[in-house]
Amino acid sequence: MNLALRFAKLGTETAFAVAAEARSYMDRGARIFPFHLGDIDLKTPENIIEAANRAMREGKTGYCSNYGIPELREALAEDINGSHGTSYSGYNVAIQPGGKPVIQKFFLSLMNPGDEVLIPTPGYPIYESIVSFHGGKPVLYPYREGKGGFHLDIDDLEKRITPATRLLVFNDLHNPTGAEEDEQSLAALSELAQRHNLLVLCDEAYFDIRYEGQSRSLVSFPGMEERCLILYTFSKKYAMTGWRLGAAVGPRELVDGIAKLNVNDESCSNHFVQYAGLEALTGPQDGSKAILSTLRQRRDRCHELLSAIPGIHCFRPNATFYLFPNVTGVMKRLGLEDYEAFRKAVLDATGVSFCTRLHFGTPLPGERERYIRLSYSGIDLEAIREGIDKLRSFLGGERHKVKSA
Amino acid sequence: MNLALRFAKLGTETAFAVAAEARSYMDRGARIFPFHLGDIDLKTPENIIEAANRAMREGKTGYCSNYGIPELREALAEDINGSHGTSYSGYNVAIQPGGKPVIQKFFLSLMNPGDEVLIPTPGYPIYESIVSFHGGKPVLYPYREGKGGFHLDIDDLEKRITPATRLLVFNDLHNPTGAEEDEQSLAALSELAQRHNLLVLCDEAYFDIRYEGQSRSLVSFPGMEERCLILYTFSKKYAMTGWRLGAAVGPRELVDGIAKLNVNDESCSNHFVQYAGLEALTGPQDGSKAILSTLRQRRDRCHELLSAIPGIHCFRPNATFYLFPNVTGVMKRLGLEDYEAFRKAVLDATGVSFCTRLHFGTPLPGERERYIRLSYSGIDLEAIREGIDKLRSFLGGERHKVKSA
Repeated sequence: MNLALRFAKLGTETAFAVAAEARSYMDRGARIFPFHLGDIDLKTPENIIEAANRAMREGKTGYCSNYGIPELREALAEDINGSHGTSYSGYNVAIQPGGKPVIQKFFLSLMNPGDEVLIPTPGYPIYESIVSFHGGKPVLYPYREGKGGFHLDIDDLEKRITPATRLLVFNDLHNPTGAEEDEQSLAALSELAQRHNLLVLCDEAYFDIRYEGQSRSLVSFPGMEERCLILYTFSKKYAMTGWRLGAAVGPRELVDGIAKLNVNDESCSNHFVQYAGLEALTGPQDGSKAILSTLRQRRDRCHELLSAIPGIHCFRPNATFYLFPNVTGVMKRLGLEDYEAFRKAVLDATGVSFCTRLHFGTPLPGERERYIRLSYSGIDLEAIREGIDKLRSFLGGERHKVKSA
Repeated sequence: MNLALRFAKLGTETAFAVAAEARSYMDRGARIFPFHLGDIDLKTPENIIEAANRAMREGKTGYCSNYGIPELREALAEDINGSHGTSYSGYNVAIQPGGKPVIQKFFLSLMNPGDEVLIPTPGYPIYESIVSFHGGKPVLYPYREGKGGFHLDIDDLEKRITPATRLLVFNDLHNPTGAEEDEQSLAALSELAQRHNLLVLCDEAYFDIRYEGQSRSLVSFPGMEERCLILYTFSKKYAMTGWRLGAAVGPRELVDGIAKLNVNDESCSNHFVQYAGLEALTGPQDGSKAILSTLRQRRDRCHELLSAIPGIHCFRPNATFYLFPNVTGVMKRLGLEDYEAFRKAVLDATGVSFCTRLHFGTPLPGERERYIRLSYSGIDLEAIREGIDKLRSFLGGERHKVKSA
């Protein structure tokens, strides 16, 4: 059986292979410290679970609109207007079975074969995969380490624009680096998008996973509401990853197109789960506050311990649940050039499991610094301490012998 | 904002427009008899709801495998092996957020641009829509009324095969006609598929919605397991339409490809809903039996009353929850040629809402007979009686004056 030719261009989340490898270690009895997970090990708040249960029992088990239930569409528009200063109504919202489906539907709706799409690297690998799969051309723009954290470079990004460039993916509060742009940079990006007539996928998966300061959206800048589609997800803020509930929020014409894709793809999103989403947005927020507070403690401990390891330096992002430490020094010390050799050596010796920069899109030529991504959403404080202690002893300050080196 | 060019080729379920129109009549206070629905107005069995509730509370709220949970994959393989005589294992199953996603994933996995795809007409309109949208060429083959019901014509189908034909959609227990092929016809179709090296999407959404006799799958014929993908859904048998739970079942290589699409499209299906699916398959079957028994009573009443209307004749399918009466006689009597005029005249005068043949794919040249589709999954016995009584008085045996004629 020959799969379609386009399959040669389909990528995946190679992070899943890391998770599978970690599981196989665990099956063999190894203690694993799961810093590779993008999942959350915290419970969905009880009021949200109860709302789903109630809706099931009230018979919200048949089809609903391909756009989602009106109550949820309106509540989400209102919620986003509150934080973004936008003027969305329920008509600007198409509910999805997760945040991720918004990626494919954005590109199926707006990208023609051969169109060039600006995509961050490092970045979430699905952007590149989906663009290539559907006949577009990913053009990667870098996030680079600078003062105070990672940033995109607007001038560099602009140089990559050609007459074929039509779309831009912007993932502020960035996975994997935790980067966020300041007001000035956002304004410049907004100006650039309008000047080059780019439509923008604003992946805001981590908009509400913020510990200090306030999240700011590109959509809030004048002229941007008309050209941005927001990827919204319930997954992180409410620990609802496995519920698969998200939304595409943007100009009505685009949202109508996406809702037509919904009819063709999955009819609608789970009906009663949408009432859980409604409770998440409009009910008590104690649950989401507790989740955020737990994540902040983990970030602080994780960052503190990691920063104490000689040869590692690591910015402390104000948002997301990732750290993206620079490990160039320790890799050099271990005599390792190769990311996978480093990752496996650490996993083998310590049980500390993480992703590397290689799991986040194609590197650009000339990348010399080495990074890994540690997620602290699926590992508790005590395991963070134990894991990073082990990492420190292994990496030490002295040269270690590593088989695979 | 210009949507992508491929949007010009995207169809939809025009039946949704009928549903929306019916709702607007209801909003204006009209009594509507909803024979247009593909939805089920019966409750999901309690044991299934309770299993979902239990799984939520046990923390099955994080991501699971993009393939689905192993227990469900294995239970479904076993269930299908029991009814199909196949030899699937869990590895042949990729869980989906509904049966419908299997359609798009089948074509994304196997169809190259320009490939010809054999698609039934009348038939579920999403096949044609998705094939065109992704650059394939739908080649329609007819279901025609014959002795004892509707059938496909193998010779006619074979004449439509060209060197570019690669894929076949087969929807036995057919929406909208309720057609099913006998053993001889299935054997001939199996032989044809192998001779022309066609890969087959077996849409078995109604496999278990059967009142007499026994369903038989094309997959059961020698050599077919390797070239068929089964679209399985929990929606109908367990009244779980709004839960969005289904599966792609077929050769491992194809299922692996589809699971890779899952990673890119929606990560995974709702985690705790999969435990509800497991309970549906392996728990007590009283609930599904009661659903089937209710549907059978509705079919019998609906068929009996409809058949009593002069100028209508209607086969009684052994499966599905649809009737597809021939209304050529009554349309002629009303002086109406146009399907939409007929549908609206009836809706306006009686509140009886149904779809017509036009809602099920592009007609072939030379179709003379006129058909409507009545679904009895969303309307109870009493409303069936009342609705069809009204229909009979309106259609009468005498000529009616109709505004829109």
